[in-house]
Amino acid sequence: MGGIRIVRKTSEMQSLSSKVKREGRTIGFVPTMGYLHDGHLSLMRRARKDNDLVVLSIFVNPIQFGPHEDYKKYPRDFKKDERLAKGAGVDVLFYPAVKEVYPDGYSTYVEVDTLSNVLCGASRPGHFKGVTTVVAKLFNIVQPDKAYFGQKDAQQTIIIKKMVSDLNIGLKIKVMPIVREEDGLAMSSRNIYLSVEERRDAAVLFSSLQEAVDMIKSGEIISSRVISRIRDMIGEKKTARIDYVTIVDPLTLKGVKRISGAVLIALAVWAGKTRLIDNMVVYG
Amino acid sequence: MGGIRIVRKTSEMQSLSSKVKREGRTIGFVPTMGYLHDGHLSLMRRARKDNDLVVLSIFVNPIQFGPHEDYKKYPRDFKKDERLAKGAGVDVLFYPAVKEVYPDGYSTYVEVDTLSNVLCGASRPGHFKGVTTVVAKLFNIVQPDKAYFGQKDAQQTIIIKKMVSDLNIGLKIKVMPIVREEDGLAMSSRNIYLSVEERRDAAVLFSSLQEAVDMIKSGEIISSRVISRIRDMIGEKKTARIDYVTIVDPLTLKGVKRISGAVLIALAVWAGKTRLIDNMVVYG
Repeated sequence: MGGIRIVRKTSEMQSLSSKVKREGRTIGFVPTMGYLHDGHLSLMRRARKDNDLVVLSIFVNPIQFGPHEDYKKYPRDFKKDERLAKGAGVDVLFYPAVKEVYPDGYSTYVEVDTLSNVLCGASRPGHFKGVTTVVAKLFNIVQPDKAYFGQKDAQQTIIIKKMVSDLNIGLKIKVMPIVREEDGLAMSSRNIYLSVEERRDAAVLFSSLQEAVDMIKSGEIISSRVISRIRDMIGEKKTARIDYVTIVDPLTLKGVKRISGAVLIALAVWAGKTRLIDNMVVYG
Repeated sequence: MGGIRIVRKTSEMQSLSSKVKREGRTIGFVPTMGYLHDGHLSLMRRARKDNDLVVLSIFVNPIQFGPHEDYKKYPRDFKKDERLAKGAGVDVLFYPAVKEVYPDGYSTYVEVDTLSNVLCGASRPGHFKGVTTVVAKLFNIVQPDKAYFGQKDAQQTIIIKKMVSDLNIGLKIKVMPIVREEDGLAMSSRNIYLSVEERRDAAVLFSSLQEAVDMIKSGEIISSRVISRIRDMIGEKKTARIDYVTIVDPLTLKGVKRISGAVLIALAVWAGKTRLIDNMVVYG
């Protein structure tokens, strides 16, 4: 195994990928904002298994953050990320500057209507437009055969799959399971923001989802009852404040009143100033 | 030379193109709405000269027409188009149905801000969003090395170039000169709508543009004087009604008051119920 190649220019990344494609080799792509954790690593390892070349991108995408969100303080540690990527078998680390991705006068946006305006999209206007725009760009630059995303960002995966299908982008989206801490908290680069108390209380996201799944598996079919139970459990934690708790169709993200077939239970919770999300898919 | 292959399915077109690319052959692409004229043919002939495989698409794109525009009555003649395409050396004619391009629940759009809201975009809200969306899709399906557009749709070419650059789409846009009738009227599928009188008057689009170029070449640098002269000439024609006449920067489409360097003189004129456009680039 050779070293990892770091690419900072779009044109260099694009011609490297074009060359690999012309040679008939496959490209697996893991787009991230860096500050890598075991969730990201599971994507890279899977990409390594499935493809000839593995490309990881690290880019904290300014246009997916709202004006009062944490773009500036989003955690960054390139040296550690590089070491972790190397260990996971990544061949190319694409690490462009903001001006390389959005030069002066940049003005093109990709948007998935409807799906982008609910759940996290309702709390974070413009967020998913920023996500789909940068992901469309990265797909054109990296030209992957397969791209890997984490189930933790359930709505993001649904929106990106829709974009790929609608725009006829010639690649496969692979969604990998949520990787969790010992107490069940979904891994997230933002967990580092949490105080000791917030961190302890944050385990309720997982435990309340588990309780919801248990209720549904035991025969509960009325969404509002399941949602109430989740809200009650989170309400007991002093440092937690609910943004939303919802049960939706996992394809359309439309609210489900009576559970039958697959549903997505999704929630977003403020732990102090940190917004955490989690979800589970269950078959009612 | 073999026959022309007609492809109606997106997946078939996409895998055909993927195969050609893997073989290291180049693809030239001419996207059209059909009802082909000599302007289109000049694009196909150039594509034939530059590439191993030439793909023509014929698709009257509903989402680039406004609710009161001519989508339904837009002229169509597939058999004639097929014959003309064959004669121009086209290898593949991609001719998808509307439901193939926009399946039920379609919801992804590509938009170029700013450039899309002026000139024709001001008169036709949503038009360029429809254009950029379908062109982005067609590029993903056909995967061309080069795509050919006519200078008649000057704003369209500028917006598509911007989209390609902003979204890092890996292809070259080639813009070919306007092809004109004997009296100077720019060729357009919509010219067939014109009555005899409207057709006669429509020559003023070209003659007024020529007059404007002469003024600038003779030293006129005040845009408003040039625009007045154009408006006066068009005003003399009974069947012509001006939508806009403007002199702009050919990259930014921003209005130019004093002419120095390259400018785009662009106009749109109603001839009865038919909207005609024309333009010239001149160096002041």
